[in-house]
Amino acid sequence: MDQFQYVNPTKLIFGKNQTAAIKDEAAQYGNKILLVYGGGSIKKSGLYDTVMEQLKAIPDAEIVELSGVEPNPRLSTVNKGIQLIRENNLEFILAVGGGSVIDCAKAIAAGVHYDGDVWDIVTGKAAPASAVPLGTVLTMAATGTEMNGNSVITNWEEKDKRAFSSIHTYPKFSVLDPQNTYTVPKDQTVYGIVDLMSHVFEQYFHASENAPLQERFGESILKTTIDVAPKLIKDLENYDYREVIMLNATFALNKVLTMGVKTDWATHMIEHAVSAVHDIPHGGGLAILFPRWMEFVAQTKPEKVAQLGIRVFDLNTEGKSLNDLAAETIQRVKEFWASIGAPENLSDYGIDSREIELMVERSMVGDTIGSYVPLNKDDVRTILVNSL
Amino acid sequence: MDQFQYVNPTKLIFGKNQTAAIKDEAAQYGNKILLVYGGGSIKKSGLYDTVMEQLKAIPDAEIVELSGVEPNPRLSTVNKGIQLIRENNLEFILAVGGGSVIDCAKAIAAGVHYDGDVWDIVTGKAAPASAVPLGTVLTMAATGTEMNGNSVITNWEEKDKRAFSSIHTYPKFSVLDPQNTYTVPKDQTVYGIVDLMSHVFEQYFHASENAPLQERFGESILKTTIDVAPKLIKDLENYDYREVIMLNATFALNKVLTMGVKTDWATHMIEHAVSAVHDIPHGGGLAILFPRWMEFVAQTKPEKVAQLGIRVFDLNTEGKSLNDLAAETIQRVKEFWASIGAPENLSDYGIDSREIELMVERSMVGDTIGSYVPLNKDDVRTILVNSL
Repeated sequence: MDQFQYVNPTKLIFGKNQTAAIKDEAAQYGNKILLVYGGGSIKKSGLYDTVMEQLKAIPDAEIVELSGVEPNPRLSTVNKGIQLIRENNLEFILAVGGGSVIDCAKAIAAGVHYDGDVWDIVTGKAAPASAVPLGTVLTMAATGTEMNGNSVITNWEEKDKRAFSSIHTYPKFSVLDPQNTYTVPKDQTVYGIVDLMSHVFEQYFHASENAPLQERFGESILKTTIDVAPKLIKDLENYDYREVIMLNATFALNKVLTMGVKTDWATHMIEHAVSAVHDIPHGGGLAILFPRWMEFVAQTKPEKVAQLGIRVFDLNTEGKSLNDLAAETIQRVKEFWASIGAPENLSDYGIDSREIELMVERSMVGDTIGSYVPLNKDDVRTILVNSL
Repeated sequence: MDQFQYVNPTKLIFGKNQTAAIKDEAAQYGNKILLVYGGGSIKKSGLYDTVMEQLKAIPDAEIVELSGVEPNPRLSTVNKGIQLIRENNLEFILAVGGGSVIDCAKAIAAGVHYDGDVWDIVTGKAAPASAVPLGTVLTMAATGTEMNGNSVITNWEEKDKRAFSSIHTYPKFSVLDPQNTYTVPKDQTVYGIVDLMSHVFEQYFHASENAPLQERFGESILKTTIDVAPKLIKDLENYDYREVIMLNATFALNKVLTMGVKTDWATHMIEHAVSAVHDIPHGGGLAILFPRWMEFVAQTKPEKVAQLGIRVFDLNTEGKSLNDLAAETIQRVKEFWASIGAPENLSDYGIDSREIELMVERSMVGDTIGSYVPLNKDDVRTILVNSL
């Protein structure tokens, strides 16, 4: 392992009807609250009413709403939120939604305390020194944003999608009631599953030595997901399946797997470039790109890919080389994702080779990206071409 | 899963020479510090000097020492520490040592803010509403106290050993440098390994449904420990082995495995009774008692014992009943612990049947103990007799 510091201040409040905890939790941070949510599905499901009832029970509550946060949340929406907080002297943010809504709320939280353009924070030019406290009510299992400081924001003017992370933007609390994910449709449920598995991959394929516990924890999340996901896809309102996937998604990116290792994240950088240029679902992009990334790195480093297959897919190793095992593992990942209905090629989204160079350029946030096998421009182009 | 709340505010500072972080971390809580340690092994190893150098670098530092904390820390020592803090208006506690030193520091931290007898807190008659902030520098991988709110204290006048836990007694930070465990002798290293594995068992054998991730996380800790421990026992100053066992012990009881499940802890209650009456090492007691507890519960519930064996010891299941598999699992646990030099019977410590009734009585903190299979007095007596 490398040396590391790990702390995660988020309080998870997990289980049936745990939305009842919101009032007491939120009231600790103030009564002037910005409520952030998306396109209105929480109004249809009734969650909006439940949350409002909780917030209105806070003495002298003053609630300002920011609705309409987009699936890939936009810088312009973040700026709108910052303005609302400043104009109304709000003290606390409650984000009710999936990853996009929560990520948007985090950027707002950090931006309010920053004098310059919040895009500086998103792009890493400035680091937040503090943030408005925020809580979340999660409605989709996918990104893990409910228990980390990460936020992904898209700047449409510049066709750029970037991520930042800060200790100040960890939620103070996150309410995880699996029932609140019942209404997530099948395709979004699949994207969430692909996303959480991809998060494990990004940390599992690290460039450090001697981290067996972190790797086995990652395998635990993958194995449990592979067991439960196909059943969930056929039974979207099953509480037991929803709760396992929800907890899995949280632990896939609450940074336990990152302890003491140099993680990779190249595939996410490539996917962010693809979806910034073409606005495709993040989970869909990952399902297409990750097997191609694995094929690329397995050419020089098949060991960890083979280990994944042996431990997670229980591959029979008899008479097989590391290369055989790596190839079999990648085949199993592809088959699993196809079996639950994930896309397999960029052409499924109508993407062809025309904007490859722009996507390559947007991917390269440094001279190389990733750690397990650092990728240069040509490597990224190869992965993208193989994904068409 | 059952509904749950999970938060763990402790900052882990892990790796080689991370003691250099103490000054800045401790200074956040004040400059009037109680330094708590044990029998002086930290003076021999040089760690005392390193820590003092850090603390003295805090501007206007005032350091009061409480040394000589016993292996099973005593109520009288806790009271001495409370008095030292009150007399000197100290603001922060730094505990440098293993589980006993840190547990003692936690009881002191909670006791200072409590008007009555601190034994009320240890026995659960009163709950701490706050505590003096504390940090730790861990010198032995075993109890996991470095990342939880637990404390075990012995009252020798009453031959009683009891545990409490509070959110207020989580360390603010814990410095984990595997090098600081190099001097832990072989027998203590073995006890630590037994202790951490037992912590996993206590949470793995829970009485709840649908917690596959928590179970696989537990299996991950067990499998990694079983792989590394025999190598460590032969090579006590190996950094790689020490670091894996250190992180494993922390995660075995930072309550991740406890999320959403009713844990057992009967074996710990019985062991606390045994070591309160006979002052034997906690890890030694657990190594003797746990296989007998497993044998007892497998009579009515062999499933989880069998699952443990299949997943952790890779048992071949062909043609075997659940009872066969459970028996084989227990045999493997016994063999593993014997192979690293753990004791196998209470008679190894010269304990015979004479004080069985006192131990049974001390074990029964309720009408029954444990959740996986609730045990009554007769059950506990059976387990103790089988352990002689």
